[in-house]
Amino acid sequence: MTPEPAAMPAGKTLLFGVGLGPGEPDYMTVRARDIILRADRLVHFCKRGRRGNARVTADAVIAPDSAREIELAFPVTIEVPVEDEGYTGPIAAFYDEAAARLATEMEAGRTLAVLCDGDPFFYGSFMHLWRRLAHRFPTEIVPGVTGMAGAWTRAEAPITWGDDVMTVLPGTLSEAELTRRLRDTDAAVIMKLGRNLPKVRRALQASGLIDRAIYAERATMAGQVIARLSEKADDEAPYFSMVLVPGEGRRL
Amino acid sequence: MTPEPAAMPAGKTLLFGVGLGPGEPDYMTVRARDIILRADRLVHFCKRGRRGNARVTADAVIAPDSAREIELAFPVTIEVPVEDEGYTGPIAAFYDEAAARLATEMEAGRTLAVLCDGDPFFYGSFMHLWRRLAHRFPTEIVPGVTGMAGAWTRAEAPITWGDDVMTVLPGTLSEAELTRRLRDTDAAVIMKLGRNLPKVRRALQASGLIDRAIYAERATMAGQVIARLSEKADDEAPYFSMVLVPGEGRRL
Repeated sequence: MTPEPAAMPAGKTLLFGVGLGPGEPDYMTVRARDIILRADRLVHFCKRGRRGNARVTADAVIAPDSAREIELAFPVTIEVPVEDEGYTGPIAAFYDEAAARLATEMEAGRTLAVLCDGDPFFYGSFMHLWRRLAHRFPTEIVPGVTGMAGAWTRAEAPITWGDDVMTVLPGTLSEAELTRRLRDTDAAVIMKLGRNLPKVRRALQASGLIDRAIYAERATMAGQVIARLSEKADDEAPYFSMVLVPGEGRRL
Repeated sequence: MTPEPAAMPAGKTLLFGVGLGPGEPDYMTVRARDIILRADRLVHFCKRGRRGNARVTADAVIAPDSAREIELAFPVTIEVPVEDEGYTGPIAAFYDEAAARLATEMEAGRTLAVLCDGDPFFYGSFMHLWRRLAHRFPTEIVPGVTGMAGAWTRAEAPITWGDDVMTVLPGTLSEAELTRRLRDTDAAVIMKLGRNLPKVRRALQASGLIDRAIYAERATMAGQVIARLSEKADDEAPYFSMVLVPGEGRRL
């Protein structure tokens, strides 16, 4: 459907983009479980010196196995503003090199499961590999439960009712833009908090939504934190935390 | 977290709201599969005289079993405009009666799995039972892969890149409102098409997004249709079809 990549070649599927869900291993799909059990190689993104979240989720199904693992360690921290050329240059080179490494594996006939947090096609790092590889190698995408669905489940907060409009906002937007968009939606999910949290909090106050806002960190995983944002005393938040503003649409 | 229902009672979990995903049975989570195999009763919504989508998805795991099944047949078609009092009265009474029926089952100690399309807390009919029952009976929600994730997977269309803003819109909004909101987002999903499709098409034209719009009907299910909306000749669409407008954010 999309202009990139061009038509996928026929033949045995070699590249699998596998959504592993929000973190709780039982929220993995049956298809994802089957694929990671069978794939010749398990590919996962991580920060240098740390295991990635998706690989930790997969531990419940596949023990660490150095012969099968391909670790893709980001060269720069993801907290650097992306407008910064210090980020986009190295990160594009990182994806180029990663794609070349994976291509070599697939040319040797090996199947690769790229482990993805949440859903592969919803803000996924995998998408940058997909657009470099899916026109060259037969590819299957396995959708997953998103991190935000894990968060609203654990918060016991249905996110949209009736004809609610829902807006998903990156916390990287400006305070004015966040405020404007929050004023104009019924339900919201604000992703990529990290050091953006003080700004997000001000935008929620300005838009009158602060009392409905729920803070969710590591939802469904070990160390889960779910709290009303108004009761969270500090502004410490990891990058993969989020804020939910549940809709208040039609109750029947 | 939310004011309704009030705190859930302790004890053995009796009510399960189980997201079964977009339709393909292998996109069910491991947790969902376990619960529907074990629950004493399988509860599913349907239109009169037809099996519901979620129950069809579950066929791959559990054969029809009349002793276990509780069918909740909507009294009016969901295509009636909800502002119409001819809808809200009967439908609220329907949920009241359904909740009373399920309460009787749980008071007898039976566990109930309510089968949900997609994710239970994302525009789910189950939410109307949940707010009537979850304060009375120990409840577990199992998140699911959403229908929209099934659609963008099958369309081979990553929905959000980089700092894209994504807006989820019900097709029931007015044409002016749809147009305004489509002009102000990077990526969009328009749900609840049905007879709203001609209006949605006009709003996509007015907002300049018609050439990026993808029509998805029964994605991941038998009879799947995925097409560029501009190449779809007619305006026939079932209620559970949708339009995707993939974002064009930062490629790295």
